[in-house]
Amino acid sequence: MFLKITAMNPKRPSIYGCRNLLWLLFFCLANPVHARSADPLVSWNSVASKAAIVKFVTEATKKGGAHYVPPAERIAVFDNDGTLWAEQPFYFQLAFALDRVKALGAQHPEWQDQEPFKSALTGDLKGVIAGGERALLELVMATHAGMTSEEFSRIVKDWLATAKHPKHNRPYTELVYQPMLELLAYLRGKGFKIYIVSGGGIEFMRPWAEKVYGIPPEQIIGSSIKTKFELRDGKPVLVRLAELDFIDDKDGKPVGIQKFIGRRPVAAFGNSDGDLQMLQWTASGDGLRFALLVHHTDGEREFAYDRQSSTGRLDKALDEAAQKNWTVVDMKKDWKRVFPAPKP
Amino acid sequence: MFLKITAMNPKRPSIYGCRNLLWLLFFCLANPVHARSADPLVSWNSVASKAAIVKFVTEATKKGGAHYVPPAERIAVFDNDGTLWAEQPFYFQLAFALDRVKALGAQHPEWQDQEPFKSALTGDLKGVIAGGERALLELVMATHAGMTSEEFSRIVKDWLATAKHPKHNRPYTELVYQPMLELLAYLRGKGFKIYIVSGGGIEFMRPWAEKVYGIPPEQIIGSSIKTKFELRDGKPVLVRLAELDFIDDKDGKPVGIQKFIGRRPVAAFGNSDGDLQMLQWTASGDGLRFALLVHHTDGEREFAYDRQSSTGRLDKALDEAAQKNWTVVDMKKDWKRVFPAPKP
Repeated sequence: MFLKITAMNPKRPSIYGCRNLLWLLFFCLANPVHARSADPLVSWNSVASKAAIVKFVTEATKKGGAHYVPPAERIAVFDNDGTLWAEQPFYFQLAFALDRVKALGAQHPEWQDQEPFKSALTGDLKGVIAGGERALLELVMATHAGMTSEEFSRIVKDWLATAKHPKHNRPYTELVYQPMLELLAYLRGKGFKIYIVSGGGIEFMRPWAEKVYGIPPEQIIGSSIKTKFELRDGKPVLVRLAELDFIDDKDGKPVGIQKFIGRRPVAAFGNSDGDLQMLQWTASGDGLRFALLVHHTDGEREFAYDRQSSTGRLDKALDEAAQKNWTVVDMKKDWKRVFPAPKP
Repeated sequence: MFLKITAMNPKRPSIYGCRNLLWLLFFCLANPVHARSADPLVSWNSVASKAAIVKFVTEATKKGGAHYVPPAERIAVFDNDGTLWAEQPFYFQLAFALDRVKALGAQHPEWQDQEPFKSALTGDLKGVIAGGERALLELVMATHAGMTSEEFSRIVKDWLATAKHPKHNRPYTELVYQPMLELLAYLRGKGFKIYIVSGGGIEFMRPWAEKVYGIPPEQIIGSSIKTKFELRDGKPVLVRLAELDFIDDKDGKPVGIQKFIGRRPVAAFGNSDGDLQMLQWTASGDGLRFALLVHHTDGEREFAYDRQSSTGRLDKALDEAAQKNWTVVDMKKDWKRVFPAPKP
């Protein structure tokens, strides 16, 4: 509304500038506001975690209150895998890498006899993982590097348009947590600027995060490989190199937050020990703070895992949450539903 | 306005929600809008560069127009040194480093006989520069690393509060270009999101850029050294390490833009060959584009330099601007004033 006023023709007499206001006033008088009284977190049961979220947001936005947080400081950071979307039976980005190996296999006959590609080609995930971190890195470099940034974005979008989760048989982008989507919208509506801070690839998330979460590319922080600027026939491109740039996990999360955002968030949301340092960094700032862990307790609707899991292990962070009174979401008890209704 | 409506008490009848609107309507009817007809670029003469800026902004924001740019895509990137503030007789960050060497000299008796510190301690800039890039890097590491990120921010602020420019005898933060401040405000008012993309240090700019330019920390991109997350007596800190992380200059600028923003800007503003690739990257995207170079032609009010300068050399980019019809600002002819009036 203010934007419209500013943008209007300055030569007209002032009364015309109010025409939009008159319309808005009319609309406002004609339409009751009862829709606004709806619970913004409808998929949450009336539990302690929900109450803690609402209390934090209410205090942060109460002008003149003791815990008021000015809008510019309302920075909230969210892990992605296991916090906003599922991460079992393996990280979705790993599923992408395995599918890419299969798609590229014909161009690489040497992969037939070469690990971790040999295992990847036959869908033998255990064989891939047996190769440890080095094998995973090799997979990532073979599937995520060598193309331009725009080409990679297209490859990710194309994959997401057809790939399906092995257990749920739904597109990966539908395996986002409905209660967390509501939380994102709630925070956004209260003036929070939301960042993803993920161990996953920054350019793997950007092509879909805006559509799925409403989070724009410039608010995505993640792990990255190096890129190189080149002129190809006079046309500038950014080429993705098979060289690690930054690992945005564990100790790397506060480093990534400072690098990209340059100020400390007031709220952090995670689900594993990989998020511990991000929660510590966020929670230890001055003034009002909020730290939350999603605990995967629902083997029926989703997956149940914590201290012993190889993917998304939640052990030290669970202990520290208890010590420091961080909010812990018990997925089975706290959430009315886990995933959104399937799209027709 | 919409925010207020959303935040109001949902239990009240809807008519109360319109009270703010009524007030605004009253205000609007009572106050003529002539103030809004004021030229947003008052410090610019009526020249081609100003006309090109206004044309670009008008087209970008014209709904339904052939060149309309949706608000989310209105990303504008600005170089800092020589584009938003002065950079002669040397980069201001170099002045900071030299002053820091002097401040730290007592703790480092070994510097008395060791270049580049020996030259720095006596204020012999030529002696420092004679050591080449390696000497400069040594100076930066000795003065920018070893403390926490919060400590460094404080050091920068303290320095800026007292240091003065050798020629103009004014605080460095007053040696910003008034016409560019107006341009930033103009773009911001039209829904552009403005980023600094500078070869200078990211954490050197963040402590003051919001106050001076209105650009928040999360919209600053620059060169960086690595940092490390540590717990000190249980309190998390980020320690600045004497190790290069990223050089955000020349080829590095498009790389930094993709890393931090993840989408291509529609407008880029620079002043030297260090900005050439950023301008190429911005200008070669689809749809409406804008690229501008500030040409330092005013030896009297500021400094005159271009093709032969060691600091802020403008040579190849000036040729390319002519070829590609990029906008070039002739500082002497185009700007009514260079710096803002001194603060009392």
